[in-house]
Amino acid sequence: MLGLMQNHPLLISSLITFAERHHGEGEIVSRRVEGDLHRYTYKDLAARSRQVANAIDGLKLGFSDRVATLAWNGYRHLELYFGVSGSGRVLHTLNPRLHPDQITWIANHAEDTVLCFDMSFLPIIKAVHAGCKTIRHYVALCDAAQLPADSGIPGLISYEAWIGAQSDAYEWPEFDENSASSMCYTSGTTGNPKAALYSHRSTILHALAGALPDALSMSARDCVLPVVPMFHVNAWGLPYSAAMTGAKLVFPGPAMDGKSIYELIEGEKVSFAAGVPTVWQMMLGHMQANNLRFSTLKRTVIGGSACPPAMINAFNDVYGVEVLHAWGMTEMSPLGTVCTLKNKHLDMAPADKLKVRLKQGRGIYGVDMKIVDDTGKELPWDGKAYGDLLVKGPWIISGYFKGEGGSPLVDGWFPTGDVATIDPDGYMQITDRSKDVIKSGGEWISSIDVENIAMAHPAVAMAACIGMKHPKWDERPIVAVVRKPGAEVTRDELLAFYEGKTAKWQIPDDVVFVDAIPLGATGKMQKMKLREQLKDYVLPGL
Amino acid sequence: MLGLMQNHPLLISSLITFAERHHGEGEIVSRRVEGDLHRYTYKDLAARSRQVANAIDGLKLGFSDRVATLAWNGYRHLELYFGVSGSGRVLHTLNPRLHPDQITWIANHAEDTVLCFDMSFLPIIKAVHAGCKTIRHYVALCDAAQLPADSGIPGLISYEAWIGAQSDAYEWPEFDENSASSMCYTSGTTGNPKAALYSHRSTILHALAGALPDALSMSARDCVLPVVPMFHVNAWGLPYSAAMTGAKLVFPGPAMDGKSIYELIEGEKVSFAAGVPTVWQMMLGHMQANNLRFSTLKRTVIGGSACPPAMINAFNDVYGVEVLHAWGMTEMSPLGTVCTLKNKHLDMAPADKLKVRLKQGRGIYGVDMKIVDDTGKELPWDGKAYGDLLVKGPWIISGYFKGEGGSPLVDGWFPTGDVATIDPDGYMQITDRSKDVIKSGGEWISSIDVENIAMAHPAVAMAACIGMKHPKWDERPIVAVVRKPGAEVTRDELLAFYEGKTAKWQIPDDVVFVDAIPLGATGKMQKMKLREQLKDYVLPGL
Repeated sequence: MLGLMQNHPLLISSLITFAERHHGEGEIVSRRVEGDLHRYTYKDLAARSRQVANAIDGLKLGFSDRVATLAWNGYRHLELYFGVSGSGRVLHTLNPRLHPDQITWIANHAEDTVLCFDMSFLPIIKAVHAGCKTIRHYVALCDAAQLPADSGIPGLISYEAWIGAQSDAYEWPEFDENSASSMCYTSGTTGNPKAALYSHRSTILHALAGALPDALSMSARDCVLPVVPMFHVNAWGLPYSAAMTGAKLVFPGPAMDGKSIYELIEGEKVSFAAGVPTVWQMMLGHMQANNLRFSTLKRTVIGGSACPPAMINAFNDVYGVEVLHAWGMTEMSPLGTVCTLKNKHLDMAPADKLKVRLKQGRGIYGVDMKIVDDTGKELPWDGKAYGDLLVKGPWIISGYFKGEGGSPLVDGWFPTGDVATIDPDGYMQITDRSKDVIKSGGEWISSIDVENIAMAHPAVAMAACIGMKHPKWDERPIVAVVRKPGAEVTRDELLAFYEGKTAKWQIPDDVVFVDAIPLGATGKMQKMKLREQLKDYVLPGL
Repeated sequence: MLGLMQNHPLLISSLITFAERHHGEGEIVSRRVEGDLHRYTYKDLAARSRQVANAIDGLKLGFSDRVATLAWNGYRHLELYFGVSGSGRVLHTLNPRLHPDQITWIANHAEDTVLCFDMSFLPIIKAVHAGCKTIRHYVALCDAAQLPADSGIPGLISYEAWIGAQSDAYEWPEFDENSASSMCYTSGTTGNPKAALYSHRSTILHALAGALPDALSMSARDCVLPVVPMFHVNAWGLPYSAAMTGAKLVFPGPAMDGKSIYELIEGEKVSFAAGVPTVWQMMLGHMQANNLRFSTLKRTVIGGSACPPAMINAFNDVYGVEVLHAWGMTEMSPLGTVCTLKNKHLDMAPADKLKVRLKQGRGIYGVDMKIVDDTGKELPWDGKAYGDLLVKGPWIISGYFKGEGGSPLVDGWFPTGDVATIDPDGYMQITDRSKDVIKSGGEWISSIDVENIAMAHPAVAMAACIGMKHPKWDERPIVAVVRKPGAEVTRDELLAFYEGKTAKWQIPDDVVFVDAIPLGATGKMQKMKLREQLKDYVLPGL
């Protein structure tokens, strides 16, 4: 027997309709590519999103056709979030930090039909447009007057002229809530990029759960600064959660330096900011150098990579700002865990609270997780056992766009590629990447732990631990080390340095001194390349 | 094109599974009918909910069969919430405050198969069991030892013996999220009671939205006391939101007096309590008489009826507790609006904040509302225009169980039976019940406004305003008044008292002095009965 409740599909258009009716006067402030601050309301956003929908209908795009963006965080990008998905098309956010060849490959793979871009990315568009076979329309996110006379892009139109010609009356269509709403490509370390294809249902459920007090905690009393880019996993869903709750939104546009971000926080009375550690490092540097304080910022969510304890302490102790670690993936919409405290932690000493805060956090309702050993057996949540981390839930992918890479799921669970512990209170902590962990004699050795010890030696500038095949132990760790300029340390000295700092069997079998560790575009160590470089290496005693 | 996200139906069993895995150590404390305090954890709750499911399976109930409860707020009732709905049966919470004849009628209409009851309700069971034709099993929520030797109920078993014999291993079944999960009958003022039939989907969406910071704001840092009964609209969804977030739960059982509630709040460090004004009145009375303070309570949600300004002030100013008005209906699961403030209100003077707080509040995402005039035309949100309030959303009914009363919807909207204003910020305020408002010359007169003015006269004990048919104006208001013992006031004096306090056309045409106003079981004025009493009344000048 079915319940007798009203049938309303969970559609992204419901967010903007709700925002207009229930907090239409809420503010949205954007620093523009043009340099100025633009401000308007959710009511304006709703009207212009409907103009976007009419403009897209005018291009005769089919249901689920892809509309791509190459844009900073700002109100026009936000209008595309609602106008494109709301009208039944798929919003495809392209990452401007990729190489033009990758952007071309991705746009062709996605079969994008329209590309809307901020003028600061015109050089990228010039580099890619000849290779993008499916894109029929290029739209520059500016006024007609700002359009260069000869952009070199055939048929280029300005966004303002494009949507300005449209009515702001539009009936949002109703369709299956499982329809695709948006997509984002992962920057896979191996092979071609693969796309997560989000649905309206997954987006709404993620926005609801993401706004909970134990997640990002979004309300009409908040003023939110998403520094995390809208071109990367929908800015952690903040644009959707904001429209759902009426939080004031503040967008930084292209000005991501410490001074600009600090001034935006103070000028707009931001209460909550979200971003990756590097942005906060720049901002804290600017504040320290100029002896500045926050007057309104209460909390910041840090994700993308682990936050150094020193930064958590600086935010907490020096500036009185609560730091929340968050963890997720493109394949997870992206929110998986947020490190909010429990009732039982509130009376803890600050040092003990910090220990909790260093972990990646607890699963939000909707996300289940487990850690498993080599055989797939679930490991205990004791904070010590570590294994491959798997997740499942309604905003986690079941597969990639066009079936690329086959089915990623294992018995319905998505393998994250991370190795983690989970403690009895449900707090997860990443210890390594699965592909980097060393499997020695049936036990696992965290490459990160091995590297951290080497990095603590005063003569070491950088260290990378990799596993080498071993006939008896399967694998044994070695550590590749770059010495600091002018500093001296021998192999035996460094191996001796490990004594007493870790279990004997976790000490690497060898140290290899190298001039440099290969790094990727985002500064991450490329251990695959390091392994190639050391392909002729033989472990001592073999 | 569909998105490529995992397919997980929104089922109530997912709440208890999540609770066990992610905050299994969270506490649940219950004052029992036995008088003592019982405490255990979400992990225990999950195990015993699975025992309930096995016990129900053992009775060979079919999918969607109804299992009824007649119980206070407590852990056993909570186990039935999860065990009954999770196993695919429908939880039917009976209201012990109804007359036994009504309970019998409702149990027969619902076709309940099992009835689980607290021992304090044994007299009700004795009165109804002969008339309840479909109930095959009676379960007393107690130990086997507490079962009376001769209860008079054939085949009566104890809950602990019943579920104690079961394994706590159980695979929650997966089924359509639109399946019925639970039901609650409204105490309609006219005709037979009608039942709202909730679904798993509506319950989960309601629990998510209800836990948002702009609604009840539930987190793992909260300790929640639901004083609002679990036999009435699922205790505003708090049991579900608590399992979702890991909030500590504290249940008052049958001890609803001011002293017991106060001691529970202090003893268990409650941060958040929810209930109707009368309960808080008793508690504040106890606190004032004994000069007591709160040490942990931070906020209280008040619903069921409007909260007197004096109570809001007492909580806020004297005890430092934030009061949130909430409004909803059985037909709405029940949450519709909660009166949380917006960013723009935070710097307001306390008196101006109080004006906002007196309203019923803003719609939660998922609930849309509108006010319409007699012709169904939508009225502006200006805080002045008032009209019939209609709502729609995924946790609002589309119809009643067994189609009783036909389709209640008007163009997809559910008419609440309330008359309200909505201001430009989206704050709704109830001004009257639709059936009580007086329609005079195309304009509406709030019967409550007319009554409030009369009640402000020192000689008036009670006042009830009703509309009388009028050939020119359709209706004109008169006010029936009960004088205070020994007090004197004439018709003309009272009519003169209205001058300057309201518009001339809103002043009642007449005053009728009566000995008493008919009241219902819950203390509400029964204007239908008053109209019957005055059926021979003729307006002056007609």
